[in-house]
Amino acid sequence: MREGGVGVGLLGLGTIGTGVARLLRRNADVIAQRLGFPLRLVRIADIDMARDRGVDLSGIRFDADAEGLIGDPAVAIVIELIGGCDAARRLTLAAIAHGKHVVTANKALLALHGREIFAAAARRGVDVAFEASVGGGIPILRSLREGLAANRIESLHGIVNGTTNYVLTEMEKTGEPFEVVLKRAQELGYAEADPSFDVDGIDAAHKLTLLLAMAFGAELTCKEIPSEGIRGLTPLDFEAAAEFGYRIKMLAIGRERRAAGGRRAIEARVHPTLIPAESLLSKVDGAMNAIAVHGDAVGRTLFYGAGAGEQPTASAVVGDLIEIAREIRRGSQGRVAPLAFLPDHLEPLPVVPLGELVGRCYLVFQAQDRPGVLGHIASALGEHGISIESVLQKRLTDESGAVPVLVFTHPAREDALRRALATIDRLPEIAAPSRLVRIEEEL
Amino acid sequence: MREGGVGVGLLGLGTIGTGVARLLRRNADVIAQRLGFPLRLVRIADIDMARDRGVDLSGIRFDADAEGLIGDPAVAIVIELIGGCDAARRLTLAAIAHGKHVVTANKALLALHGREIFAAAARRGVDVAFEASVGGGIPILRSLREGLAANRIESLHGIVNGTTNYVLTEMEKTGEPFEVVLKRAQELGYAEADPSFDVDGIDAAHKLTLLLAMAFGAELTCKEIPSEGIRGLTPLDFEAAAEFGYRIKMLAIGRERRAAGGRRAIEARVHPTLIPAESLLSKVDGAMNAIAVHGDAVGRTLFYGAGAGEQPTASAVVGDLIEIAREIRRGSQGRVAPLAFLPDHLEPLPVVPLGELVGRCYLVFQAQDRPGVLGHIASALGEHGISIESVLQKRLTDESGAVPVLVFTHPAREDALRRALATIDRLPEIAAPSRLVRIEEEL
Repeated sequence: MREGGVGVGLLGLGTIGTGVARLLRRNADVIAQRLGFPLRLVRIADIDMARDRGVDLSGIRFDADAEGLIGDPAVAIVIELIGGCDAARRLTLAAIAHGKHVVTANKALLALHGREIFAAAARRGVDVAFEASVGGGIPILRSLREGLAANRIESLHGIVNGTTNYVLTEMEKTGEPFEVVLKRAQELGYAEADPSFDVDGIDAAHKLTLLLAMAFGAELTCKEIPSEGIRGLTPLDFEAAAEFGYRIKMLAIGRERRAAGGRRAIEARVHPTLIPAESLLSKVDGAMNAIAVHGDAVGRTLFYGAGAGEQPTASAVVGDLIEIAREIRRGSQGRVAPLAFLPDHLEPLPVVPLGELVGRCYLVFQAQDRPGVLGHIASALGEHGISIESVLQKRLTDESGAVPVLVFTHPAREDALRRALATIDRLPEIAAPSRLVRIEEEL
Repeated sequence: MREGGVGVGLLGLGTIGTGVARLLRRNADVIAQRLGFPLRLVRIADIDMARDRGVDLSGIRFDADAEGLIGDPAVAIVIELIGGCDAARRLTLAAIAHGKHVVTANKALLALHGREIFAAAARRGVDVAFEASVGGGIPILRSLREGLAANRIESLHGIVNGTTNYVLTEMEKTGEPFEVVLKRAQELGYAEADPSFDVDGIDAAHKLTLLLAMAFGAELTCKEIPSEGIRGLTPLDFEAAAEFGYRIKMLAIGRERRAAGGRRAIEARVHPTLIPAESLLSKVDGAMNAIAVHGDAVGRTLFYGAGAGEQPTASAVVGDLIEIAREIRRGSQGRVAPLAFLPDHLEPLPVVPLGELVGRCYLVFQAQDRPGVLGHIASALGEHGISIESVLQKRLTDESGAVPVLVFTHPAREDALRRALATIDRLPEIAAPSRLVRIEEEL
């Protein structure tokens, strides 16, 4: 192996796997110029051996035998790109048990089974690298782990799901409703046939789980992250946001907080958010991703790039291969803690309940166009201590005769807001459940 | 040392040095939680021992003995923050000769003496880290070296000098001339008393030298980089740029090119540039920095953050300390080539002469307001094969009676443009030397 470089095995020859094979071949020269020796893709396992992927696989053993690949002594690093959780978990753990290093792009796997996988890798003395799992080709995890390691991270705001960012950008641009834009995104291949993983925020929550660990030392606890999707947004929301100097982005948000008694806690949430139109993050359009990280020393930073796609994702996977190959060559496996904090410094940090959040909000009411209705809404908000910053009553848009009343509030506690909305929704003039979209000012 | 952590010595207790001391103390807990052991600042050398920097130096030996610090067995890593080139070079080489690892923020030192310094470090088996030298707290060098290592880098466009970006942002915002804005920047501490290092592009050229090595494997050859400062820009330029959908940014540009015969060459240049107002890079305002990197696999990326300042720079310096401390602990010094490519793959790549650049340009002529003058300018451009995209003739601004004629060209070779300008400058109606500002469309 020393002479011939480091041997790599690939589990899963789908889009990303094919991209990895293509990239390893195309850039073999520059990779070797940086590394000093070649990375050799020696073996691939995939159940579909017939399909032509348009990539040169000569010299690479290709069969359906995943277990054989994992046990192959020519393979030092296993790339897991089969997706899903069951087989991926089993094969990842098997690879680790065989003393193989693992590179994966599988955020769901790590968010849900990361504790088990990282513990197994630490015991076996192998590395698990996963740069491709968040932000595609953007080296954000490496930056949190090493480049920004001197910082106490204060907050992070990420556009980490390209599908939702594409849909939101299109909705804003065309004024079309969610369903129309989603359908087109599906036709263009930007969204899956079953889009819920993306548009309901599940994928973003998986990614946020990893980011929270690396930024704040929070133990992987994906289940606790409140997530809200983008299905409820209407073209009117984009108009109103623009009128008040905002854009709407689906954000994964993490922020360090001090709970009562000085105990550490974190804000952790995924939801559509109004952000100032002049912020850099608001300029991130289409399927692109970006993560804004605020550290106590570095201040505000932003990392931008393609969050998905064959070659951008392959860029991150092969970057991880290069790093692990160096560790193998230097015998420095486990040099950096995979989640940035050493395992015994990862803590089960409590997530601040949404009700305790304090911030400005954008509220949408569907009211019958009768005299006094605005007064009733305003009174109900006032009774719950919610102070109104501006109100926008829009033209009739609904055949039911309801008019939207849009309210921007001053900073308020979310539980008070929710109670106010519940009161308002019981008013006879209110035609549909009221909605709340959070505003983040400091990015 | 194993028990007590890794010992660090600091040469130079100026602004950044003080920031490093402050940060190491403030974040000692999170650093140790990531590293597994403490970084200990054991010794500081500075000629000014009297001044109170407002930082707790208890337990740290502080004297003026730089040589003593370098030879101190308690010091494993030397931070060079004395600036300038002569003493910095001598002490850096001395530290390396003593087997010390070096962390520096000194781009001038590395751009001018990097070959000697990296060669000495490689021979002695120690690391030289310099993340703080480009883009302040932004982990851009680390990203080029590791995160994007799988890519063939195609181009980079950096706003890497905060002073010029601050001045340009203010000129655009206030409509005031360069001298007025510069004076205010000096009063506010954003610009030095002698601003030429910043506003004439020297600092940016030093930084570009390092970026070119790490992106393209170009040997450090700072002297060959054509640099042009921002002193010639007028408020009118910003108006005209805005009218045509551009903003003006001082960019450090690198791009891989194929010269005749397929030989590799690079575009390398520093100059004020018109860039599309909708590009992310154009939104980088004030003293902030950003580097857009285009890789063949990852596509377009952008790294944004504070390019200078006490704590952002300290963030990068301490990030380097953390990395080197890990290498020391794991015996993996020299794991990554400091300039991203192994030394024998760094090549003296020829820089494409400015005359051979092809691109759109913005031209400014000061013409007497006489009939026919626009015709003369247009004819001269046409004779040299320069095709005009748009012309803007502005109101009278000059007491000499000259009116500015502003021209946006279609793509043209720069040598043809220069010949056309020389012809035009000989016209009797032309009151002042004509100017050319390059346009970059693809960022």
